[in-house]
Amino acid sequence: MTYCLGIVTQYGLVMAADSRTNAGVDYISTYQKLFDFTVPGERVILLATAGNLSMTQEILTILRRDLRAQADVSLHTLPNMYEIARYVGSKVRQVIETHRAWLQQDKIDYQCSFLLGGQIRGEETCLYLIYSQGNFLQATPETPFLQIGETKYGKPILDRTLSYDTSIEAAAKYALLSLDSTMKSNISVGPPLHLIKYAANTFLIKHRVELVLRDPFLIKIRKYWEASLRQAFEGMPAIEWQEGEFADVALLSAIDPEVLPPPS
Amino acid sequence: MTYCLGIVTQYGLVMAADSRTNAGVDYISTYQKLFDFTVPGERVILLATAGNLSMTQEILTILRRDLRAQADVSLHTLPNMYEIARYVGSKVRQVIETHRAWLQQDKIDYQCSFLLGGQIRGEETCLYLIYSQGNFLQATPETPFLQIGETKYGKPILDRTLSYDTSIEAAAKYALLSLDSTMKSNISVGPPLHLIKYAANTFLIKHRVELVLRDPFLIKIRKYWEASLRQAFEGMPAIEWQEGEFADVALLSAIDPEVLPPPS
Repeated sequence: MTYCLGIVTQYGLVMAADSRTNAGVDYISTYQKLFDFTVPGERVILLATAGNLSMTQEILTILRRDLRAQADVSLHTLPNMYEIARYVGSKVRQVIETHRAWLQQDKIDYQCSFLLGGQIRGEETCLYLIYSQGNFLQATPETPFLQIGETKYGKPILDRTLSYDTSIEAAAKYALLSLDSTMKSNISVGPPLHLIKYAANTFLIKHRVELVLRDPFLIKIRKYWEASLRQAFEGMPAIEWQEGEFADVALLSAIDPEVLPPPS
Repeated sequence: MTYCLGIVTQYGLVMAADSRTNAGVDYISTYQKLFDFTVPGERVILLATAGNLSMTQEILTILRRDLRAQADVSLHTLPNMYEIARYVGSKVRQVIETHRAWLQQDKIDYQCSFLLGGQIRGEETCLYLIYSQGNFLQATPETPFLQIGETKYGKPILDRTLSYDTSIEAAAKYALLSLDSTMKSNISVGPPLHLIKYAANTFLIKHRVELVLRDPFLIKIRKYWEASLRQAFEGMPAIEWQEGEFADVALLSAIDPEVLPPPS
């Protein structure tokens, strides 16, 4: 598995990814999942990948081949992010179509997905999720983040904190906590982590970071966060229990559904 | 979906469950998922259910029928929790076997699972997870909680905080936060929430609570928790970014995989 995350706010974009790939639990390796196709001063194009590695690698190879061949249609020629999302989606369809029948007959999961984030001069910063079927959706101010891969463990922290008004520095910290929560709960997500912060309308990537296993900063924020959770927890209001000896009533109600009050 | 959670520590047991059942997203209803079969002073038996509702209801009906008929083998006669886990597992197998072929041919998910928690006089407090196949596993001091249903959203808070030394009052609060995180991230989990706290070696349920939608306490702890997360976050160490203008190098490495350093 993998976990990648994009956050777009009015101030810019954050993209983050782990680097773990696994085929079962006994073949685990490290592959970069976050790729930068920026043309400084003109367009910022970031891609993150999840799913079947042989599919995502081949799709990236084709995207790169179009760039190297200076094809008419490529990540560097298309006039806007919507067209780029369509273009990446078409490559996803093309590669999956080539392999689907062979993988399907051996019940191998060929699904993959991409996050596409960036900004082209003249447009707003934007973020797309491109599905295995080649269709895509766009992050909006109401839900300013998109995730691919192992998305669930890292979602609560984002649901509770993020909005379109969040600064990109704060968004980057939340992204890191979201990744760290996922790593802690699922061994199929792991370091090095890659994180990129992009300030809207700069058309340059000025901030990025790679955090390796046992990176002191990663350890520091994990310790800090766990201590903070415990401290926050200390002050949490006490549960207002119904006190009594419930066994008799409960026994009746458990045995005899007829005496239960109707579902509320 | 549903989310149920059990926590066993050296001080006792906490069981918690939501009450939402859905068939797709357009048929959502409320059913109790946490059931108390305690015999005061002798045994505490709690069951929580997830999965196909028609299966779990029928299994509970059979368990209750054995009790009402004062069968030789029932939740109230078996001498220990291990035997009760086996007994519940056998009923799971029996009911699923009755319906499997009919559901399978229409591709309906018939899976279900149970949490069984409690204590019988002469034994330690214990907690089991009984699978749809009737086999089961037991919580241990290393991993003192078990979950069924929509388990992922609520797992990070538990992974970061719980241990076998946690008091049951603290465990109950963490259980509530875990449920609340899940509700916030997944609409298929919802109130009323049921929470039971059992102090080891008392053989009585003295604390339980039902929290309905918009329960003031539920709102209070959610607000408190989100404010605390934000506050904890304020003090979080700054990310130590690599600063620069990365586009050139990144462009090269994104286009030309040959110039990439080998995976670390």
